[in-house]
Amino acid sequence: MENIRLESYDEVAEILRNCDNVTILTHKSPDGDCIGAGMGLCLYLRSVGKHANVVNSDGFPDRYDFLIGDYQPEEFTEQFVISVDISDTTLLGDELECYKDKVDLCIDHHGSNRFFAKKTYVDPSASAACLIIFELLEHMGAEITLPMATNLYTGLATDTGCFKFQNTTPAAHIAAAKMFEMGVDFEHINRKMFDIKSRSRILAEQRLVGDMRYFEDGQIGFLTVTNQAVNDFQIDRSELDAFAQIPLTVEGVRFGYTLKQQEDKPQLFKVSLRTTDADAAAICGEFGGGGHLRAAGCTIEGKPREVMAKLIEVTRKYL
Amino acid sequence: MENIRLESYDEVAEILRNCDNVTILTHKSPDGDCIGAGMGLCLYLRSVGKHANVVNSDGFPDRYDFLIGDYQPEEFTEQFVISVDISDTTLLGDELECYKDKVDLCIDHHGSNRFFAKKTYVDPSASAACLIIFELLEHMGAEITLPMATNLYTGLATDTGCFKFQNTTPAAHIAAAKMFEMGVDFEHINRKMFDIKSRSRILAEQRLVGDMRYFEDGQIGFLTVTNQAVNDFQIDRSELDAFAQIPLTVEGVRFGYTLKQQEDKPQLFKVSLRTTDADAAAICGEFGGGGHLRAAGCTIEGKPREVMAKLIEVTRKYL
Repeated sequence: MENIRLESYDEVAEILRNCDNVTILTHKSPDGDCIGAGMGLCLYLRSVGKHANVVNSDGFPDRYDFLIGDYQPEEFTEQFVISVDISDTTLLGDELECYKDKVDLCIDHHGSNRFFAKKTYVDPSASAACLIIFELLEHMGAEITLPMATNLYTGLATDTGCFKFQNTTPAAHIAAAKMFEMGVDFEHINRKMFDIKSRSRILAEQRLVGDMRYFEDGQIGFLTVTNQAVNDFQIDRSELDAFAQIPLTVEGVRFGYTLKQQEDKPQLFKVSLRTTDADAAAICGEFGGGGHLRAAGCTIEGKPREVMAKLIEVTRKYL
Repeated sequence: MENIRLESYDEVAEILRNCDNVTILTHKSPDGDCIGAGMGLCLYLRSVGKHANVVNSDGFPDRYDFLIGDYQPEEFTEQFVISVDISDTTLLGDELECYKDKVDLCIDHHGSNRFFAKKTYVDPSASAACLIIFELLEHMGAEITLPMATNLYTGLATDTGCFKFQNTTPAAHIAAAKMFEMGVDFEHINRKMFDIKSRSRILAEQRLVGDMRYFEDGQIGFLTVTNQAVNDFQIDRSELDAFAQIPLTVEGVRFGYTLKQQEDKPQLFKVSLRTTDADAAAICGEFGGGGHLRAAGCTIEGKPREVMAKLIEVTRKYL
């Protein structure tokens, strides 16, 4: 069966209007964008009398409790499966792997999308999956409630680094303006998502930044988070995603790598790359990973120094 | 002579159309908003054939070079004086103090504005002085060039913490969307304004945050920057403004104080206050200072422990 690429919000809207008993899949190691897009869409489907649930392989981290709110899973016989913010079935995670051939509709904003679903709507120019959902709901004339808008704003803000990153668009700002009018408590959300850190996390960041390694005249920077450091500093693993932004804050760094040792597989490092001007997705693609132009990731086996050596070798081609 | 409060963009526009040979005043310790607003307005006035200069008591810090661009002061006989982003003549600084009774038009967004000018347009709901200038130019049907938009975006972004702070409005997002369409290089600007730090500054921040003092169960946090620390860490004084945001990033802190010892008057501390929910301007007002609801400042004499004691005493009333 051929996988279909949807080209317009009309086509997606038609599908949403006709589906029911929907399971919405979000990606493993969930972030604000997949949770916001999943919850936003779920709340909408429920608001028009449909049954829908949002699921995640790893569960939802506590810090997103304000998005989950009083959401409770519903009982129903699943008839339709939608994935949001998922570019590849490898991102479903262990618990949701069973869905890899069963996704009816994929809504995504990654240029690296693999078209694994029966039907896919992907817009790589969209700042966030949440922006697609928001525009889609507007297009459908949906009544967007405050909880929906809160979810969708959170994903839009987190994926754009609060409107700072290269992927921010006029459309992102216009959507934010509308979400503000809907009463979204952006100050609280942004403080929670970007600013507030526990004293222990501040100390942890201090130490890790102090231990950063630099190569090629400081153009390549590595921040390494070992399991030992996670334990020593009692870092909440759900907070680790935010560390990926740190290396690029050091003056002169053009390739900011964060290496995170995997809890269950200590010989594996999850690599996050942020770049100022180089193609991050291309670099991570050389290691079987992917992502966006300035933010991408991959997984590499080895000791930290071996992982760094592999990354430096490839990065040199992009200097 | 009575000082007049202007109520509409029409009134301000009328004045701008009729003035020439204009000196634009910006506040001492200049930030992105006063420089952006001053330069944006100056570039506009010049673009319609008028003569205009932007002046500052302290000069413009190097980090704003991209706003100054190829701007050069012009020679003319001054006929009109405009102040931007200045709420009180005490903010003119030593070099511009001579203007304190000579400001013809004040354009500002501080609720604490003292109406020192002959005519004042103040909109405390505006996220930034730059937003007022932008909307004003749009209202006038001005052709907003990329350098103008770059200046105005920079002030809008810096004063809102890149659309994160409580003072961000739908109008701020809508203006940003338009500025993006004008080609503003927001990625570069935001990296420069918010993200990039020298390795020495990162080390300095680490140490200062590690030395923070907390009171009232961690609700009040003090970060102190002494002249000794500035010298030890070779901190560029123009970077110190950014430190004001740090204390509030610590979990639990509701009153985030930054005390900056004055270079020329070591017995004086410039106090910056950021709050999560209390009235910062009211607290600083008790020490003769002022500002916004969540961001304000004042100056207090004494040793750091004495300054802290004074601030704690007043802050307790707002807990």
